[in-house]
Amino acid sequence: MNVLTIVKVGGQIVEEPEALGGLLKQFALIAGNKILVHGGGRSATEMAEKLGVVSEIVDGRRVTDAEMLKIVTMVYAGLVNKNIVASLQSMGVDAIGLTGADMNMMLSVRRPVGNVDYGFVGDVRTVNAQALIELLRSGYTPVLAPISHDGQGQLLNTNADTIAASVARVFAFDYRVRLVYCFEKSGVLLDENDDNSVISELNKETYLNYREEGIIKGGMVPKLDNAFLALSAGLEEVLITSASNMTNGRGTHIR
Amino acid sequence: MNVLTIVKVGGQIVEEPEALGGLLKQFALIAGNKILVHGGGRSATEMAEKLGVVSEIVDGRRVTDAEMLKIVTMVYAGLVNKNIVASLQSMGVDAIGLTGADMNMMLSVRRPVGNVDYGFVGDVRTVNAQALIELLRSGYTPVLAPISHDGQGQLLNTNADTIAASVARVFAFDYRVRLVYCFEKSGVLLDENDDNSVISELNKETYLNYREEGIIKGGMVPKLDNAFLALSAGLEEVLITSASNMTNGRGTHIR
Repeated sequence: MNVLTIVKVGGQIVEEPEALGGLLKQFALIAGNKILVHGGGRSATEMAEKLGVVSEIVDGRRVTDAEMLKIVTMVYAGLVNKNIVASLQSMGVDAIGLTGADMNMMLSVRRPVGNVDYGFVGDVRTVNAQALIELLRSGYTPVLAPISHDGQGQLLNTNADTIAASVARVFAFDYRVRLVYCFEKSGVLLDENDDNSVISELNKETYLNYREEGIIKGGMVPKLDNAFLALSAGLEEVLITSASNMTNGRGTHIR
Repeated sequence: MNVLTIVKVGGQIVEEPEALGGLLKQFALIAGNKILVHGGGRSATEMAEKLGVVSEIVDGRRVTDAEMLKIVTMVYAGLVNKNIVASLQSMGVDAIGLTGADMNMMLSVRRPVGNVDYGFVGDVRTVNAQALIELLRSGYTPVLAPISHDGQGQLLNTNADTIAASVARVFAFDYRVRLVYCFEKSGVLLDENDDNSVISELNKETYLNYREEGIIKGGMVPKLDNAFLALSAGLEEVLITSASNMTNGRGTHIR
């Protein structure tokens, strides 16, 4: 069975050229089929500030109005995605940057308005596995930006962790899939201020216990929910780690 | 022999959602293989103004410094390219947006510093015809943004008219290529203020005469130079026209 490594990179790493360069070098070393999924870090927020676009935050999540959608499309699909692709090309990786609109790669449904209207935010419904497989077979490395579309001409801001998990799920049947969430810390930490307190292994039960005790909280919760969602589709494992540990297997293994 | 239609769209059309929508509807109607190449109009200039980025103009051409390169990458490869792709998808065209870095599609050399240093501007050296042919054969419609790369990790701002001509040239041997330059006017005009004064046919000789007489001037000169350059590679014809005339054959035919 073919091996496929899906690396999701987000947080501060994406914002710092040097850190990003280091991560891409590690990524380039991964043998076999691979896909990179990136977020945009705070770069879109910074751009919004520069442009004087004020975006509302509700329950810790940003509302994507029309102006904010323009900004995330520019920053994620343009600036971040294309610089990653150009860097990978210089390292001998034949990368191709894609949003969900390109090749109809990720079809989303705009999040329904409940208590909160998050604006132009999409939840992925379909990943075009066939198109991704054709690209991989032809030797290309897809680089996915966190922008999808609704098939009616509307781009939608989409969570990169969820994209990575959704892509992993559709490959789980045909490939031995390894999903790696890379960020600035060495893994899921017992003490968020101590990078040496990495929890080396998590299963659903231990995760729920840590969550109940308040040890695992904040942004780590949706990330781990995505990890377990992907795992349930039959993945080999999910690894949460830092860029420098991407290939040495250190970090938090989700099984 | 397979027919390939390459449409380059630029100028005001790209800036106005309604005009662009109309053009894309016309483009979607074109049967067979097709490629869309777009510029960015004044949208990058407007974004630069909003961000307080001052860019130098030398001999009527913009200098692309590091800040301006960021802006054109955001606007051309992100905002403009991805909205075009999403619109085409909604019209049943399986579009894929690409810069020169994606699939190593367009490899450029940074323009040498002569009397003027134009900054991060690239002149296309190689078009990856094989990758484009594979995409066309698989039923995709490439949408090319005017950004290329140097293979060393550097993105470069690149003229969209030249990209269209370069792409046309590499296909001229294997396809019957029709190159259409679409802009806000109905063709090359005898009187730039009279949209009814379209010159219906131009060859090299009549072009040079009009140029000498000062009738053809300004931005039309590099466009026509590109048209004749493409023609010399064995194209069927080059048509310069408006979006609404894209499929009815009206406009200036370059032969």
